[in-house]
Amino acid sequence: MAEPTTLRDALIDEVRDLYHAEKQLVKALPRLAKAATSDELRQAIESHLAETENQVSRLEQVFERLDEKPRAKVCAGMAGIVEEASDLLKEGGEDAVLDAGIIAAAQRAEHYEIAAYGTAAAWADAIGLTDVADLLRETLDEETAADETLSALAEDGINAAAGVGAEATR
Amino acid sequence: MAEPTTLRDALIDEVRDLYHAEKQLVKALPRLAKAATSDELRQAIESHLAETENQVSRLEQVFERLDEKPRAKVCAGMAGIVEEASDLLKEGGEDAVLDAGIIAAAQRAEHYEIAAYGTAAAWADAIGLTDVADLLRETLDEETAADETLSALAEDGINAAAGVGAEATR
Repeated sequence: MAEPTTLRDALIDEVRDLYHAEKQLVKALPRLAKAATSDELRQAIESHLAETENQVSRLEQVFERLDEKPRAKVCAGMAGIVEEASDLLKEGGEDAVLDAGIIAAAQRAEHYEIAAYGTAAAWADAIGLTDVADLLRETLDEETAADETLSALAEDGINAAAGVGAEATR
Repeated sequence: MAEPTTLRDALIDEVRDLYHAEKQLVKALPRLAKAATSDELRQAIESHLAETENQVSRLEQVFERLDEKPRAKVCAGMAGIVEEASDLLKEGGEDAVLDAGIIAAAQRAEHYEIAAYGTAAAWADAIGLTDVADLLRETLDEETAADETLSALAEDGINAAAGVGAEATR
């Protein structure tokens, strides 16, 4: 940007970053769902994919309220997280271990978004754009819930199942 | 890895990823601290840098308990987050807006680590390595506290100061 960056400019940048992050996830989640061996995990990822597609539309509403055209800005953070997930799928592994790895990858993505949506919502509040902040917090709540669902799946069986394999080969 | 990946292998991979993530942060945090214009923010980052150096040593203890030599594995997620932080510093901006951006960048890093340490601790538990899990959770707690400190700094003045500039130029 040529002119000095205001918090409004920074917010627009943050929303563009998130727009790219969500779009990358819309592409990556089906690959994670396909690789999942647990039915529950696959369903959780597929349901979060539907949520993610809706989050893309919600960001388009945010752009509209900011009087900006929806435009993505390369989100290197999410690109790195998706790259790690792709490497994991290439490596493979025993079923439950692979599922545990898929959960780990998806939780990194969720946490990236929790940080970024939290920032964006706080900035929108700081410049008095309450409606924008509300939209961003709707997604923030969904990301937090998705992260908790993944933790529950890990703790309610997948990690234990994966650990049995590890015990056997120690 | 040639052999099938067990949860223990996956844990070692996760610890190697974190080792690289922390080492990247040890290099990046001084640049963020130097660019910060708020004294409180600079001090918070410097204090987290000292904590991060200790977290590197703690990971070396984890490697030792896993009978593995400390070895880093490229952590693309943190690399992307650090790249975004570097771009931010290049862009610059009005003082408080830059500080708000530095907080945003640091919180992305914290959240990456919260996800990764949470995963690693849960996996260590699942294979009965309680001492390893305890070490990982010590760091997890520090990352969570660092994230909260950053949120408090944003909410207690930096966002409001940054927002004033935005209001003025809207």
